[in-house]
Amino acid sequence: MEINQLFNNSNLKNGEKVNFIARIRTNRVGKAVGFLVVNDGTTFSDLQVVYKNSLDNFDLISQLKISSVIRVIGKIVLTPDKEQKLEVQSEQVEILDSASQDYPLQKKEHSLEFLREISHLRPRTKTFQAIFKIRSSAAFALHKFFQEDGFIYVNSPIITENDAEGAGESFIVTTLSDGDYEKDFFGKKASLTVSGQLNAESYAQAFKKVYTFGPTFRAENSNTSKHAAEFWMIEPEVAFEDLKYNMNLIENMVKYVVNYIFDNCYDELLFCDKNLEEGLIKKLELVKNSNFEKITYTEAINILKDAVKNGQDFIEKNIDFGLDLATEHERFLCEKHFKKPTFITDYPKDIKAFYMKQNEDDKTVAAIDLLVPGIGELVGGSQREDDYNILMKRCKEMNIDVKSVSWYNDLRKFGYYKSSGFGLGFERLIMYLTGAANIRDVIPFPRTPKNLLF
Amino acid sequence: MEINQLFNNSNLKNGEKVNFIARIRTNRVGKAVGFLVVNDGTTFSDLQVVYKNSLDNFDLISQLKISSVIRVIGKIVLTPDKEQKLEVQSEQVEILDSASQDYPLQKKEHSLEFLREISHLRPRTKTFQAIFKIRSSAAFALHKFFQEDGFIYVNSPIITENDAEGAGESFIVTTLSDGDYEKDFFGKKASLTVSGQLNAESYAQAFKKVYTFGPTFRAENSNTSKHAAEFWMIEPEVAFEDLKYNMNLIENMVKYVVNYIFDNCYDELLFCDKNLEEGLIKKLELVKNSNFEKITYTEAINILKDAVKNGQDFIEKNIDFGLDLATEHERFLCEKHFKKPTFITDYPKDIKAFYMKQNEDDKTVAAIDLLVPGIGELVGGSQREDDYNILMKRCKEMNIDVKSVSWYNDLRKFGYYKSSGFGLGFERLIMYLTGAANIRDVIPFPRTPKNLLF
Repeated sequence: MEINQLFNNSNLKNGEKVNFIARIRTNRVGKAVGFLVVNDGTTFSDLQVVYKNSLDNFDLISQLKISSVIRVIGKIVLTPDKEQKLEVQSEQVEILDSASQDYPLQKKEHSLEFLREISHLRPRTKTFQAIFKIRSSAAFALHKFFQEDGFIYVNSPIITENDAEGAGESFIVTTLSDGDYEKDFFGKKASLTVSGQLNAESYAQAFKKVYTFGPTFRAENSNTSKHAAEFWMIEPEVAFEDLKYNMNLIENMVKYVVNYIFDNCYDELLFCDKNLEEGLIKKLELVKNSNFEKITYTEAINILKDAVKNGQDFIEKNIDFGLDLATEHERFLCEKHFKKPTFITDYPKDIKAFYMKQNEDDKTVAAIDLLVPGIGELVGGSQREDDYNILMKRCKEMNIDVKSVSWYNDLRKFGYYKSSGFGLGFERLIMYLTGAANIRDVIPFPRTPKNLLF
Repeated sequence: MEINQLFNNSNLKNGEKVNFIARIRTNRVGKAVGFLVVNDGTTFSDLQVVYKNSLDNFDLISQLKISSVIRVIGKIVLTPDKEQKLEVQSEQVEILDSASQDYPLQKKEHSLEFLREISHLRPRTKTFQAIFKIRSSAAFALHKFFQEDGFIYVNSPIITENDAEGAGESFIVTTLSDGDYEKDFFGKKASLTVSGQLNAESYAQAFKKVYTFGPTFRAENSNTSKHAAEFWMIEPEVAFEDLKYNMNLIENMVKYVVNYIFDNCYDELLFCDKNLEEGLIKKLELVKNSNFEKITYTEAINILKDAVKNGQDFIEKNIDFGLDLATEHERFLCEKHFKKPTFITDYPKDIKAFYMKQNEDDKTVAAIDLLVPGIGELVGGSQREDDYNILMKRCKEMNIDVKSVSWYNDLRKFGYYKSSGFGLGFERLIMYLTGAANIRDVIPFPRTPKNLLF
């Protein structure tokens, strides 16, 4: 049996027989009785197992180190007055495998930095049990949300000939070491994808509603708490629909995931609230219950200008139309000004990508960012340019290699009417949901510059 | 509204108003009346729209090319005697975007080879609408199956320092072109993962039940219908459980997915049965209703030997213990001999991976393959070696670089009792579910030697 079956069974009676395998988290022993705290990974709550010196192997058990694996046969003891509502009185403790005393996760507190170096062991800690359970549930919630709404899951390619619009921030994929790409596996230069959006758009023209969910890569030499070389993205795309639809979709998606986590990972949320971000639950409850704010970029600039006048201190105080908002500005808007998730729409065209639909003012594009308290930008999206000629003109203005995106631009020739979509950085969502402050702590085996372990 | 809402609404009445956007699949016109067959991607069934010359823009509509996008406002006409139970009498057809007559998917049949060259357009064909709907649903069914059973979804890393046990079949990931990996992004040689299993095992020790679902890569110069350089794998891993548990899990998983596809993609299955593999539905129904066969490798060898004696013609007729079964042998066993999905267990240790648990006979390992009719091997798995010393010995015997897997081997020092898991090639599953004969036709943008488009 699994330990979660004990905690989830409200009909459990005193004296009921149990038999399970688990790992020891702590082992405390007195003269006549010992206490094991164990967990088998199926539940966030640990279970206390009492063993008495009447057991044949009492001495052996009492010497067991943390992380040893045992089989426990025993009886339930209900403990309604204690924090844990039940414990187990063991009748037999079979030692299945003893852990070495070199096991790095002894009872003391460990720094997150140290734990990153043992990414293969850190999920055994409470912190990472909480984070990675929430990550798993959030991934499923996203799939469920989109599938229930009729979206088709598309696996956009990981190896691509499109090298990120020439931004020079993509990894090369090769079987050689001399850069002679014509002789290489694919007979040409190949890169790791930075986004599946262009591919997703072609599928949206077939299925109307699609989403990707896969890894993306950025060879950016940034050692910040928000950047990783490998991260997962969700990129939904909907044909025949505009920016307004997009905003509704994003708001519904975020609320759906938050609700799912409340319903399925509440113990983990409580732990995160206590240990990672004070007020996490209150913050997320606000998201569930608020209507997201919607303002234009131009309005946002005016709010920020007023804030500076009123004494708000920004590192970048030079606030004018054209400014690429920094996290400090984004957080001010959603945390201090509106105090809730805030959409910003209609950004200056010069700071956004070539494929975003030009507005009639000839200055802005139908772009959208969702800013959330504590993070800043969580989602970025846009309605796509559907006019072939404008798209080609934007490619030229922005030095995009037209040849490499000709198949994409050509979609506009074959019946194309509106398309809108967005990208959600999955790790950023998990940071938001758990309060984890560093992206390295929300992805199982993080990859950053000069850092590739496991 | 979406067209699927019309087909799924059994209360729909004659004369009911409709208003939707869709793409034209065919346009047939007479003097006074024209017929458009349209689809908006939300349903497998196409919808017929009738337009009369009483419409202002009748001439313009009649000239519309395939793939043009229109808005239709009109009324439902129930047609219970026809194959399609309803059509739409249009009152207004707004032309939203005309497709060029260069659109490559005209009404005639196209070869699958040609369609691969236009992977961005092929999902608009019936064949690929069926295949990629089934792919999307199967992906979700797998997530659902594992999540409902308490499994944690783990994103194993894509970029890894582990180069596939030195097999030389992995892609290098770099930002340079000179092979000076010490100066490279990660400061060491980096590869694309060939399997997330080792990482998943470390998570199974924390969560008991985990699964991966992500892309994996093989730089193998194979131009067959079954090999791609980029493909998706599902790799579940369960701690504290053995090969028998593993077999039950695999059987339940396969049946769950097949049932889910029957429940959610029956129209698509019918199409595949008619156009891709005759007897597909019968084949899959057999899977739903059969108990999978279980035999040992040694028994399989004896069956194959007897078959040769009885005149069965194999390319490889030299059948003895130690033979790495070829697809012809696998298919004979499950198609002709047992006529149902068949597990083969306990393979010779010399043809299997270093991490598989040695059986007491010192000749075989606790490995398992699931063979299915029409494909051969669908799933491969094993119970893992839990004895540190045997594992180290196997590494040496098989020339595994112990340093690169030391973290993995070390798991055995920190409390390790049984672990078993398997790998399911997702594309192979989709070939099995759709009857598609080539892996290039079940992955949206296939990557094979000298072939990298989009």
